Amino acid sequence: MSRIDEIYPADRVTLREVGLRDGLQLVKRFPSTAAKRDWIAREYAAGVRHFEIGSFLPAARMPQFADLPEMIAAVGALDGAFSSALAMNERGINDATASAVDEIVCVLSATEAHAQANMRRSRADAVDLIRRTAALSRQVRPAGERQPVYAGIAMAFGCSIAGTVAPAEVLRLAEAALDAGADVVGLADTVGFAGPDQVAELCRGMAGLCGDRPFGIHLHDTRGMGIANASAALDAGARILDGSLGGLGGCPFAPGATGNVVFEDLVFLCGTKGFDTGIDLDALVAVREIPASEMPDEPLYGALARAGRPRVLGPPAT
Amino acid sequence: MSRIDEIYPADRVTLREVGLRDGLQLVKRFPSTAAKRDWIAREYAAGVRHFEIGSFLPAARMPQFADLPEMIAAVGALDGAFSSALAMNERGINDATASAVDEIVCVLSATEAHAQANMRRSRADAVDLIRRTAALSRQVRPAGERQPVYAGIAMAFGCSIAGTVAPAEVLRLAEAALDAGADVVGLADTVGFAGPDQVAELCRGMAGLCGDRPFGIHLHDTRGMGIANASAALDAGARILDGSLGGLGGCPFAPGATGNVVFEDLVFLCGTKGFDTGIDLDALVAVREIPASEMPDEPLYGALARAGRPRVLGPPAT
Repeated sequence: MSRIDEIYPADRVTLREVGLRDGLQLVKRFPSTAAKRDWIAREYAAGVRHFEIGSFLPAARMPQFADLPEMIAAVGALDGAFSSALAMNERGINDATASAVDEIVCVLSATEAHAQANMRRSRADAVDLIRRTAALSRQVRPAGERQPVYAGIAMAFGCSIAGTVAPAEVLRLAEAALDAGADVVGLADTVGFAGPDQVAELCRGMAGLCGDRPFGIHLHDTRGMGIANASAALDAGARILDGSLGGLGGCPFAPGATGNVVFEDLVFLCGTKGFDTGIDLDALVAVREIPASEMPDEPLYGALARAGRPRVLGPPAT
Repeated sequence: MSRIDEIYPADRVTLREVGLRDGLQLVKRFPSTAAKRDWIAREYAAGVRHFEIGSFLPAARMPQFADLPEMIAAVGALDGAFSSALAMNERGINDATASAVDEIVCVLSATEAHAQANMRRSRADAVDLIRRTAALSRQVRPAGERQPVYAGIAMAFGCSIAGTVAPAEVLRLAEAALDAGADVVGLADTVGFAGPDQVAELCRGMAGLCGDRPFGIHLHDTRGMGIANASAALDAGARILDGSLGGLGGCPFAPGATGNVVFEDLVFLCGTKGFDTGIDLDALVAVREIPASEMPDEPLYGALARAGRPRVLGPPAT
């Protein structure tokens, strides 16, 4: 038993803000610890509850995540908020399970070529790391308080090295991750190759595989399909969606390309589809001030922030 | 009998480039006639066949469309290409039916408030203008060569003045336009209020109303929903979609907001959904040079132009 039902209630859509992790992955200049705290506090006040905030890696390799312990504490101090961070290796899973982070993210590549090139390990070894993470999480905390393990499958909709990825192969890996003890599996369109029909097909497969468990989807807007893919994922049963404020987070394989699906536009989409995310759009849009001033060289995307909500329609139903 | 089946073959998706009309509607500086000709010629070479190129209005009111006769001639010289232009009043429909334009667009507002404020006529009078346009088009050319009338319903998904618009009211107006002699009805999300579920619902209604006739959808990306809405429209049976190169064309009611749905991203979307548009994406993206140099103050949008097609997946099926 883990805290999974508390973190991802089955009866609603959860939007995970990954801007503080994926959005900072490639940047040269990153926000101060104080600014990150402010970012989290203001998004929390706007209604955001799920924050992916970094990676358990040596600070020398990823200085933008050197303040991960402070970020975990910052999210931990907020009632009903959940922190999430990546653990990429043995040392990472030890640090993660010893920390107060609410959820541990492990990453698995959909293709052997990308697994070897990006992670320098086979997919089988990545599944093994998920297994050890899940086992360790069972050892370090009492039942009912265990940190859930979120297994993200990178390149699930196409690979920058191997090209086309068969949906059946992704579902096989998702099942392997669940069998290894992952609590949730998320599919990532890491390089923005997906279209909505492809997302719908794979999400229907995930819904069949996961049954009552929720599953996640992590979309990039590299080719402008982000919101269309999110809509298709919601229609096909996905209930955990990632996004980043202002679409922060580029694509390492397409310099200059747009990044993660824009969180604000995702909130608006959910509203049009009748999903109550509990997030105040105006307040969320105002938080863009922080990355805008802390990372002035990073473009912020998103149409909602330019146009505003349709005020003539009155306040949203949320 | 009109040329409608030739212009919009029922067995394929038609993408209409409205950048030369809607994209120039609000700009202060616009391309030279030579640059517009080049724009049309290069998009034609890329596979585009449908060009909305202006409005039959006095040149003093809309100098960007003063060269409409030259644009009609430019499109007319290209084998299998079709020109389209707006006729907004009695003088406009006389000029349009006397011209060689391939299709006449009449505009009808979904709400009485917007009809009065924007067109200074009632919706009933707008339907009457459609009736007179259709009648005149029957007089001036022999059967089989008649110019089709495309009736665009503005504010079909929400109105900047009246707010919410009932789908049943839009369908009633669509039926009135068809009864008045329109060959095609298109629904416009003029101010970008729509979400994909709303688009799907209204398009299903249109599919029921229109039967074997194709119907159109004109989307704006004002709140980032453009491609998601296009995907929903395609799923619900829409086969005529508008877009503009680089998303040109802002929103008069939301200054600084993004404009029409981006043509390049729309082409990519269609490809992911298995629709053959016959358009070469790389060649299309290259045409952005023209508005970029002719209208340097106008932002060009679109993710595909930044990231390029996923080359590792090989050439598209088209």
